[in-house]
Amino acid sequence: MPNESRHYFDWASTAKPENYPLDPSLHFGNPSSLHKEGRLAKEALESARNRCASVLNVPPETLYFTSGGTESNCIVLFSHIARQGKGLIAASNGEHSSITENLRLLDRLGRQTHSIPIDPLGRVTDSSLIKTLTQYDNVRFTAIMAVNNETGTINDIVNLRKIMVNAEPPVHFHCDMVQAVGKIPIDLAGWGIDSASLSAHKIGGPRGIGLLYLRKPLEVLYTGGGQERNIRPGTENVSGALALAHCLENRALPEITAAEYANAKARCKRLLSGLKEIDRCRLIPAERESGDYDSVFSPYIVQAAFKDIPGEVMVRALDDLGFAVSTGSACSSAKPERPVLAAMGIDDKLGLEGIRISQGWSTTDEEIDLLLAAIQEVLKFL
Amino acid sequence: MPNESRHYFDWASTAKPENYPLDPSLHFGNPSSLHKEGRLAKEALESARNRCASVLNVPPETLYFTSGGTESNCIVLFSHIARQGKGLIAASNGEHSSITENLRLLDRLGRQTHSIPIDPLGRVTDSSLIKTLTQYDNVRFTAIMAVNNETGTINDIVNLRKIMVNAEPPVHFHCDMVQAVGKIPIDLAGWGIDSASLSAHKIGGPRGIGLLYLRKPLEVLYTGGGQERNIRPGTENVSGALALAHCLENRALPEITAAEYANAKARCKRLLSGLKEIDRCRLIPAERESGDYDSVFSPYIVQAAFKDIPGEVMVRALDDLGFAVSTGSACSSAKPERPVLAAMGIDDKLGLEGIRISQGWSTTDEEIDLLLAAIQEVLKFL
Repeated sequence: MPNESRHYFDWASTAKPENYPLDPSLHFGNPSSLHKEGRLAKEALESARNRCASVLNVPPETLYFTSGGTESNCIVLFSHIARQGKGLIAASNGEHSSITENLRLLDRLGRQTHSIPIDPLGRVTDSSLIKTLTQYDNVRFTAIMAVNNETGTINDIVNLRKIMVNAEPPVHFHCDMVQAVGKIPIDLAGWGIDSASLSAHKIGGPRGIGLLYLRKPLEVLYTGGGQERNIRPGTENVSGALALAHCLENRALPEITAAEYANAKARCKRLLSGLKEIDRCRLIPAERESGDYDSVFSPYIVQAAFKDIPGEVMVRALDDLGFAVSTGSACSSAKPERPVLAAMGIDDKLGLEGIRISQGWSTTDEEIDLLLAAIQEVLKFL
Repeated sequence: MPNESRHYFDWASTAKPENYPLDPSLHFGNPSSLHKEGRLAKEALESARNRCASVLNVPPETLYFTSGGTESNCIVLFSHIARQGKGLIAASNGEHSSITENLRLLDRLGRQTHSIPIDPLGRVTDSSLIKTLTQYDNVRFTAIMAVNNETGTINDIVNLRKIMVNAEPPVHFHCDMVQAVGKIPIDLAGWGIDSASLSAHKIGGPRGIGLLYLRKPLEVLYTGGGQERNIRPGTENVSGALALAHCLENRALPEITAAEYANAKARCKRLLSGLKEIDRCRLIPAERESGDYDSVFSPYIVQAAFKDIPGEVMVRALDDLGFAVSTGSACSSAKPERPVLAAMGIDDKLGLEGIRISQGWSTTDEEIDLLLAAIQEVLKFL
């Protein structure tokens, strides 16, 4: 931390790092090499894969190490370029930019694409998905994220999968789980999805390592040296994989996730109660204010707007007081627009007033109270 | 190291790691975030870029952090899918699999491609390149590596660039420098190339970080959150970038590279002299035996075959005695073929008998002598 008085509320952007083991000299060999150093590295890599598989309760052969969530999403999406098959590629318009931007690119490259609308809460509803499947008879792929990175909206993946399960032709269901793993209860295999993306640095791990879950192998675009069973070329990041396994064990075992989820819910309730007492505050979406939709939102992410204060101004004002919050996704912070909020029907002015407050496992009640007091302080002057 | 009696001769596959600083908690923020943690991370990232640029003597804005050499190669190659422009995509048939495999894929996707033949020494010759440019009047791209990863063959990049420089339409010249940086004298800007790939783990850095040099920005295939000025999406690997900067400063400053190059040459001479005394040894290519072509080969990589002993058997026998060598590229170790050697005109039997002995900055004369003795020992029984 830069100094002791900082309070970090931008965990959705990146988590505070855990003390994961990261000694590359222990397993420095190239896992593709036949000699002892190579075999030791290969063993370490496969032990990391087995540990990840054990936490996620899936067969180890369904997990592929990648450089992170964005790459995992891209591998799946760009597999459509590699494969000759036609068919419609659909994604919700609440997805992360690594999906939505590349969907646009696929469209430009001549593939048929479709954006599945989200509702005012940010969800892909049953009817929205059914409408897509009815409107087009050739949907072959859908990407719907588990937890939205800007609003915390949770999609009902199990239910959405049920709608797709009997579709003909079969629909590949990809789920971006970057904001879900270690945060809300998940069940990769049980949910019946075909592929999923995970990122280490969102659960305390290092940058440059993530996972792609593939229920069945996929013909991908990028090839090369054949690593990761031809799904992801490039010398394997063994120490990164071990660090990811460590973080998954620390954060994503079902009982740990459940316990932390309960803690985060209590802290979120405290935060929402405090925000509701602030006249100029409006939660995004407004439905979150009633409390009726608590189960629809991840307690780790709250989006709120403060009347007549652009989000960026609020972010800077709170930063000056020692609090790190963000506007939208860090991945889109350079862009003066909020496409996900717009897709929810939020008007532009309100959208640009939105800030994202995201907490993590080490966030305390006291920090929440300090943040609320800091917001009140800012509002006195702005 | 697994134990003290190991001798590592597989540096071309991956280097022994340096003691680079790797404390993610120092710069854990997301560089795209506006708050203090984000700004500190951004500053650290840009300081890493500036340090890399200073070592490589190029403007910092020409350097983009990627996940490694393979990804850097892929970004450049797959930019041809993003761009609508037609034209022939050429690459030498001595390139790393991340180029050759993807050239085949581009071909399959309907792009016009061409493999530039290499000569018996493994080089792209002037005449070979001129022939390609004459045969096709629409060459828009060539990939020619600086140092071959299997044979150590050095291409005369400056000269090859001169041949292309007045071509119309202009030819983008991509150079895979993964085995060149920190090994042989290079001059990214002075050579006049358009793009180059670098990998951290080949010079003692961690996995999962590399560089792409782009003289001018390129329209790439993968997009996402806009990181690395839209060239490489995904949350930036700040600690990896700092480690890479550290390793470049340690290994790739011109005066250091030159001094180590001289040391490596002396050790290589010792190795080649010893190998020449072994009856059943044949250097690949055989021309290397005369010593007349010393400047054509990187002293860090020697390819040699031992009569009637498959390379894989020799690798395992030497491994048992404590020596780590490899056959071809680690990236292709699973494949029972040696396409680069075949492209040089080496027959299949000899090619499959080849082993790669690659040294590094901490290799000693004593280790070379021990390796030679170990080879003699193996030959007694095989």
